[in-house]
Amino acid sequence: MKGTHEGKVILTGDRTTGPLHLGHYAGSLKTRIALQESNTQFILLADLQALTDNAERFKRVTDNVIEVALDYLAVGIDPEKSTIFVQSQVPELTEIANLFLNFVTVSRLERNPTIKEEIRLRGFERDIPAGFLTYPVSQAADITAFKATLVPVGDDQLPMIEQTNELVRRINGLLDRSVLTECEALTPKTGRLPGIDGKAKMSKSLNNALNLGASAADIKAAVKKMYTDPNHLKVSDPGTVEGNVVFAYLDAFDPDTQAVEELKAAYRRGGLGDGIVKGRLENILHELLTPIRERREHYSKDKGEVLRTLKAGTEKARTVAGATVAELKRALGLVYF
Amino acid sequence: MKGTHEGKVILTGDRTTGPLHLGHYAGSLKTRIALQESNTQFILLADLQALTDNAERFKRVTDNVIEVALDYLAVGIDPEKSTIFVQSQVPELTEIANLFLNFVTVSRLERNPTIKEEIRLRGFERDIPAGFLTYPVSQAADITAFKATLVPVGDDQLPMIEQTNELVRRINGLLDRSVLTECEALTPKTGRLPGIDGKAKMSKSLNNALNLGASAADIKAAVKKMYTDPNHLKVSDPGTVEGNVVFAYLDAFDPDTQAVEELKAAYRRGGLGDGIVKGRLENILHELLTPIRERREHYSKDKGEVLRTLKAGTEKARTVAGATVAELKRALGLVYF
Repeated sequence: MKGTHEGKVILTGDRTTGPLHLGHYAGSLKTRIALQESNTQFILLADLQALTDNAERFKRVTDNVIEVALDYLAVGIDPEKSTIFVQSQVPELTEIANLFLNFVTVSRLERNPTIKEEIRLRGFERDIPAGFLTYPVSQAADITAFKATLVPVGDDQLPMIEQTNELVRRINGLLDRSVLTECEALTPKTGRLPGIDGKAKMSKSLNNALNLGASAADIKAAVKKMYTDPNHLKVSDPGTVEGNVVFAYLDAFDPDTQAVEELKAAYRRGGLGDGIVKGRLENILHELLTPIRERREHYSKDKGEVLRTLKAGTEKARTVAGATVAELKRALGLVYF
Repeated sequence: MKGTHEGKVILTGDRTTGPLHLGHYAGSLKTRIALQESNTQFILLADLQALTDNAERFKRVTDNVIEVALDYLAVGIDPEKSTIFVQSQVPELTEIANLFLNFVTVSRLERNPTIKEEIRLRGFERDIPAGFLTYPVSQAADITAFKATLVPVGDDQLPMIEQTNELVRRINGLLDRSVLTECEALTPKTGRLPGIDGKAKMSKSLNNALNLGASAADIKAAVKKMYTDPNHLKVSDPGTVEGNVVFAYLDAFDPDTQAVEELKAAYRRGGLGDGIVKGRLENILHELLTPIRERREHYSKDKGEVLRTLKAGTEKARTVAGATVAELKRALGLVYF
């Protein structure tokens, strides 16, 4: 990653609905650790966005702000290099989002494929909270507030970037100058990490996740439960690598790709038992997660210090977003005294 | 009005899409002048709300903030008694509105009869700006930010008050205590002032309005054009008072109700020409509007002073709304450092 992107302004972040897991690590955190070296990176603890479908369970959202922040610090996101901040503490973002709402129609929001799919997944039907339907507008505000030029997203989130750039073009077109900045999506090169049960997505709510703060016992238990090839009954049988979670995780985390390829070949031939492959993965996960867990425990001993870090990041974010909102309001004539 | 309401907190205001006219005076400004004596009154220059259906014509909205403020001062709204402020300069209102969006569904917003009718009137069909669909939520935020207990509205705006109180009850219910305050609508006792052409509503866009800053010549011309009884061809003919704009205005503005009743009787009998009645109305309107126009001219000579008044009012509004947003965010756990 390093070298391919330099001098960009990056906006990224997570909904604060629970501690982060290995899927987040593989899908986004690793990228952020690389990107923070040669870019200006803003990382959003998206509590307001999390509220759009968790308003009744707000405590879950607010309690997890610190948990996600601990995960960030534990994996190596460096607050000296990345600005970590809390969305709800930057009212400037809400001001921009509110102005943007006038430049997008309800039917355009309803056509957003990501929103359509998420509405289906959540079973909202007609009872969609208005904040949920309009959250792509808030996201556009978050992105443009920092004049972000690069936004790491999953493939399923590409319509969000499209909608952001539509808003940017519409407003710049009306103002006849580039007050807002268009952005580019950065999509992952590798596929999504499956859950330990083999489901396509690792998720706390599916109960198939391995958290970044997992203990040695948690890791052992997770690897033991891990989905392999249900038809690979005897060690001597040929096994299937595709859809086999253990191999998916080795692909994602084992630095010795040569060894992994050899294991795959042996597994396919037959004669290699799940126990051997799982043993290797367990070691790899211990190596990966032990330092993360230890750093997480270290930081969680002084939450006051973590909160001071978030406060400093939030103040920086407010300054940057404040400049953008002032520029946008000035351009729209919304400055009187 | 005075005496019937005391010790209430009032939130009222106007969209800033043009200078105010006689219809505003009869329908709301007179009430505000009375209410400011024994209540705490906040008056909102609703530029953000005006933008929800005027985003492309934003200059019209922002240019008229000062015009509406001049109208307020000219009619006798006293900034020592009423807090006059500019909506877009109170970001706290947007923060509250943004939180509220999570507590109302899209279908509930679409069912709001006022919004339905306004969508129809504006010909939006499916191209409703999202900000327009959600403006009742912003209005609820404006009302609750000041803990308003009394909100003067037209009958057509009653669904807005209902929706505000629904939000208040839902959020207080979730928080298990009264963080927000329910409000009561204050609807006008008299009917709406018709346009000078006899249409039910006076409106700048219908070109049937008489502005509060009207010159003597404007008043003369308006009264001359005024719709009376089209079947009252000869002075000796019996005339109709109902739907006759001249009599509607005498009812609204002539302090001598006895004399107006006598004129009505004579008009109905026949023998009273439009010229006599119009002459009386012209005098009444001169008496009403001349001091308003003169005060308006006086204030418009020092717009800097008017802006300082708005700034002071806005600062006061921010303090009050800021306390509410802080209370609401604290109750929702959205305070971290």
